[in-house]
Amino acid sequence: MKLLRYGPTGQERPGLMDGQGQVRDLSGVVQDIDGAALSPDSLAKLAEVDPSSLPLVAAPGRLGPCVGRVGKFICIGLNYADHAAESGLPVPTEPVIFTKATSAICGPDDDVIQPIGSTKLDWEVELGVVIGTEARYVSEERALEHVAGYCVINDVSERAFQIDGTGTWDKGKGCDTFGPTGPWLVTKDEAGDVENLGMWLKVNGELFQNGSTKTMVFKPAFLVSYVSRFMSLQPGDIISTGTPPGVGMGQKPPRYLVPGDVMELGIEGLGAQRQTVVVETRV
Amino acid sequence: MKLLRYGPTGQERPGLMDGQGQVRDLSGVVQDIDGAALSPDSLAKLAEVDPSSLPLVAAPGRLGPCVGRVGKFICIGLNYADHAAESGLPVPTEPVIFTKATSAICGPDDDVIQPIGSTKLDWEVELGVVIGTEARYVSEERALEHVAGYCVINDVSERAFQIDGTGTWDKGKGCDTFGPTGPWLVTKDEAGDVENLGMWLKVNGELFQNGSTKTMVFKPAFLVSYVSRFMSLQPGDIISTGTPPGVGMGQKPPRYLVPGDVMELGIEGLGAQRQTVVVETRV
Repeated sequence: MKLLRYGPTGQERPGLMDGQGQVRDLSGVVQDIDGAALSPDSLAKLAEVDPSSLPLVAAPGRLGPCVGRVGKFICIGLNYADHAAESGLPVPTEPVIFTKATSAICGPDDDVIQPIGSTKLDWEVELGVVIGTEARYVSEERALEHVAGYCVINDVSERAFQIDGTGTWDKGKGCDTFGPTGPWLVTKDEAGDVENLGMWLKVNGELFQNGSTKTMVFKPAFLVSYVSRFMSLQPGDIISTGTPPGVGMGQKPPRYLVPGDVMELGIEGLGAQRQTVVVETRV
Repeated sequence: MKLLRYGPTGQERPGLMDGQGQVRDLSGVVQDIDGAALSPDSLAKLAEVDPSSLPLVAAPGRLGPCVGRVGKFICIGLNYADHAAESGLPVPTEPVIFTKATSAICGPDDDVIQPIGSTKLDWEVELGVVIGTEARYVSEERALEHVAGYCVINDVSERAFQIDGTGTWDKGKGCDTFGPTGPWLVTKDEAGDVENLGMWLKVNGELFQNGSTKTMVFKPAFLVSYVSRFMSLQPGDIISTGTPPGVGMGQKPPRYLVPGDVMELGIEGLGAQRQTVVVETRV
């Protein structure tokens, strides 16, 4: 299944994409696409629903983030060997964990706001792993039993905030709109071989990232197991698994985003996103 | 007001501590002590309630974390000059931001579970700042308008997870039960001068931390302003503002916690906590 959320920010309704690429309303079946809806029992029930029996949403309008009420938004740093190289950093011997503020999560096509003071705004196409049942000290072998599905994430980053100054990565990762998530969550059974999915990102039509999850250092099953040793994972939590080469910081010279730039990105079978960079006007 | 949550884990009810030190049930007035209840309007309404008109809770039992549905649990590292010195690190020129997993939050007297593989379990008494209204690029002068109140936090830390290996702090900060929060939230109007509150922590009756918020490098108003430049702060978010000297890692030789150890800690006017360290038995 392709599960999604549509409607204005903060008022999203649950939906699914049917076989004809049309949005069907799920609000008669689940309250939201959130941790509760992503349990194995709930997903099994959803799978039994005939999509054609659900109300057709002729004009879904905006898509929201495909998961609601995310409790933790955990990221893995430098998880592609080539990306570590372009960042001038060694491949880690074990996963580097950092976090994005959950308030950074937005819809897949929402504008990305350049924060005030930002000079090094950058992109990162990533495979997101969405948790379906609590995971605590799970083995790598059983880790995927705790996964509901996968989605596309743009781990938008401000490199000056992240690295310069007293540099704690969290400063440059959690700004509002730095976490476009979606367009939909593809359930595990339909996501294919997540260790071999093409992924790409363009800026203003120019291809910058063109990789595959097959060059990941630490794979999703290992990551779920590993993270679950340091914190329990709850339904609806997301692990964003790192980015392949081609970020702006890695260009020679570096290429950072400015207002008006358009990012388009996607992962094979998981859909595509499109964001326009805009100036912060909310203050 | 002293606002609190009482009852079994996950089923806490809202309450307040009256002038006689008795718990009064607030569930007829607010759903929970969470972001919605902490807005200025809501707090003003609560302040008009005569505590003696509320049901007395004769046996409140367990206290839960004093804030429910926390969206972000943000921490400031090395924010006391003496603690930076005992950690062998320079005083930062600007705040160091890191995060604790919200799943680490627990009640003030709940057991602290030593994670599997932990060898360097440590304590940190901290002043928690609880957000009442959204803060985004707020000035230092107006920052406290966005604060609902303050509470005691034990920023329990596993130093090997935090610092050794590929060391990303988040690994050693977000384990389950690493965030005792409470016993109550003291609203801003009753918290006194938060830049001059005594704070202390004992292990098995021996005093290890005995400091004051007056030696904080960056004060609460500055921190709210500063963090709000990197991420918007929502009602119910918590900023834990760093710890004074006396952590286990700073002892000569270091003194780390083992199962059976009892931590007692508190901040002047904000109450006290008490946790017993236990072995992980949930796997």
